[in-house]
Amino acid sequence: MEVDKKDENESESSEQVVNPWEVSAKDGGKIDYDKLIDKFGCQRLDESLIDRVQRLTSRQPHVFLRRGVFFAHRDFNEILDAYEKGDKFYLYTGRGPSSEALHLGHLIPFMFTKYLQEAFKVPLVIQLTDDEKCMWKNLSVEESQRLARENAKDIIACGFDVTKTFIFSDFDYVGGAFYKNMVKVSKCVTLNKAMGIFGFSGEDHIGKLSFPPVQAVPSFPSSFPHLFPGKDNLRCLIPCAIDQDPYFRMTRDVAPRLGYSKPALIESSFFPALQGENGKMSASDPNSAIYVTDTAKDIKNKINKYAFSGGQDSVEKHRELGANLEVDIPVKYLSFFLEDDSELEHIKKEYGEGRMLTGEVKKKLTEVLTEMVERHRRSRAAVTDEMVDAFMAVRPLPSMFE
Amino acid sequence: MEVDKKDENESESSEQVVNPWEVSAKDGGKIDYDKLIDKFGCQRLDESLIDRVQRLTSRQPHVFLRRGVFFAHRDFNEILDAYEKGDKFYLYTGRGPSSEALHLGHLIPFMFTKYLQEAFKVPLVIQLTDDEKCMWKNLSVEESQRLARENAKDIIACGFDVTKTFIFSDFDYVGGAFYKNMVKVSKCVTLNKAMGIFGFSGEDHIGKLSFPPVQAVPSFPSSFPHLFPGKDNLRCLIPCAIDQDPYFRMTRDVAPRLGYSKPALIESSFFPALQGENGKMSASDPNSAIYVTDTAKDIKNKINKYAFSGGQDSVEKHRELGANLEVDIPVKYLSFFLEDDSELEHIKKEYGEGRMLTGEVKKKLTEVLTEMVERHRRSRAAVTDEMVDAFMAVRPLPSMFE
Repeated sequence: MEVDKKDENESESSEQVVNPWEVSAKDGGKIDYDKLIDKFGCQRLDESLIDRVQRLTSRQPHVFLRRGVFFAHRDFNEILDAYEKGDKFYLYTGRGPSSEALHLGHLIPFMFTKYLQEAFKVPLVIQLTDDEKCMWKNLSVEESQRLARENAKDIIACGFDVTKTFIFSDFDYVGGAFYKNMVKVSKCVTLNKAMGIFGFSGEDHIGKLSFPPVQAVPSFPSSFPHLFPGKDNLRCLIPCAIDQDPYFRMTRDVAPRLGYSKPALIESSFFPALQGENGKMSASDPNSAIYVTDTAKDIKNKINKYAFSGGQDSVEKHRELGANLEVDIPVKYLSFFLEDDSELEHIKKEYGEGRMLTGEVKKKLTEVLTEMVERHRRSRAAVTDEMVDAFMAVRPLPSMFE
Repeated sequence: MEVDKKDENESESSEQVVNPWEVSAKDGGKIDYDKLIDKFGCQRLDESLIDRVQRLTSRQPHVFLRRGVFFAHRDFNEILDAYEKGDKFYLYTGRGPSSEALHLGHLIPFMFTKYLQEAFKVPLVIQLTDDEKCMWKNLSVEESQRLARENAKDIIACGFDVTKTFIFSDFDYVGGAFYKNMVKVSKCVTLNKAMGIFGFSGEDHIGKLSFPPVQAVPSFPSSFPHLFPGKDNLRCLIPCAIDQDPYFRMTRDVAPRLGYSKPALIESSFFPALQGENGKMSASDPNSAIYVTDTAKDIKNKINKYAFSGGQDSVEKHRELGANLEVDIPVKYLSFFLEDDSELEHIKKEYGEGRMLTGEVKKKLTEVLTEMVERHRRSRAAVTDEMVDAFMAVRPLPSMFE
């Protein structure tokens, strides 16, 4: 997350700002997601859609769906309509490789995408925007590519199916059909429009203007001739955090003019910082987040020391008033990562009514995250260079729709 | 040449405008090349440099050097300094494939580049900017690529050495090391800077902002890892018309920040339209130019009908006053294409002093151009698809510096 950019509402300085480079709530409060849905013009992901997912996939919807982590969408209903008639789609998500280690917030779209891939049995492309990070973060080309490969290992560790998944680095893959689509998209977006959508200024370098088409074109199957030859009408579903919406608003605006289908989106809220829910976690403050490289001791210390508590100042007051669950980070984190619905409800009730103390909730969270991070670490350690090469090879996907 | 763009001097509407999309003289007069040299900040190509070329290559300098068609340069002296010490360089030129058939003005940089390749025994890369023409001319990707390949045949027909020459289409070749250099260049150019250099406006599409790095990076040997591995310090010399100077001003500005050598330039004036010397020929008016596809009859008709004459209205007046050679197009064209210096001098003297009539000069020009076009046609007819494939294959060049 960078903070040197303003979005199109720059003038309303006290308003919330959500774009790919900045997420900040109004007056330091919480992000108003209802307002964001209105402003962006996307749709709320309601119960009936979640029920449909359950019916179509014959399995319980993912925690992130059940608990509203993925809360907004564009045309997800159309994807389900088509799926119901037997038409498959493909998934597209990505990561900007700007840091060595991922934090839990980074894992959310990948955990969810893995679920979608399994549940719908569909292919997936994962874009590593090493070119973007080279341009925005002032990393060298080589360092951006190194980070892309390191991050690919963490992504693979989430359990993706190599027979259905293509991971690519922009520096490696831009060219050919992909570049042709970049040019087609570029022709359809004026400088004024791009500056409005992304908030670029005259002092920004032209690489920033060149990049939005790079993130746009994986939405079009013709950008992957080795995967989808002759399948130009295959729909694309993009699971992502809602700060990426500007890229895909632009993409959806352009798609019909190129004779392409608009990509559908399913969008998540932001995973809060340990210090409280007023934005995304920041890679520049290691104590704002739990990293997948943190030790059990790190995790315990961070949660005990930094996780913002909604509990009361004294045990007596807590027993009397209960915890404020709206601002409590341990409960928030548990609602992302504690699978068991009834256990979560139990904790919320006991804690909210003062019978459970902050220390107990933090202990539970420490257990859950330690186990999750430990599992990720084991899984990542098992990812060999050969596996990375396999996921990143430009090749047909053998069991793409099975 | 497009006319919907203004250069950085837009405000001075009566001034001459020279940029990659517009060439127009002040008040419809002639281009003031001295002023252009001052404004662009390049250097005049003087006699001593031409003498050096003769000495270093042990052959008579090309007509285009002897007669000042290539009249300006940037660091060409440094290329010669290095060459004298035994250091080779490579040549880079290009074409935007916007039309089926080339006119004589299009051939000039290629005829000159062929001479440089032969005289200095150096490798050459030729960029076909099909992406540019797709974006500026509203051609489809497929049509731009088709024109690129058709134009490649005309270029090959100029006689380039396949063992020393790599011709590439941007749509085919952008990617990998080339794209990495594009990103590096993009990072170094602000939007304000690009708008200043190229005169883009907010209503222009972002593809135009993305393109200058595409034309910039063939100046760097690392963009061609299959040609110049480990030769990152190889200097580049770009023969081109002076309207392309803005691209390479930008490139030269950026190069040191990337640790790259600045490309050197050798720049030509514009080949005038048949109707008179106030700009470049226009592909949109077929009667403004002689095309390589014109028949002998077309050539004769166009010269007789459209070639602006500096001769007097009546034979009597002509015998008395002589022709105004400054504005006479037949003489101008002969000075580009009549090899024999003494014959040209003879014509200029006889015609200028009224002893030779316009009809005689036009007849001579018709002979010269008919033969030249006929030779080109035969040469182009002999260019097979296999030859195009050979020139465009991404492969090492076997006898690059021999």
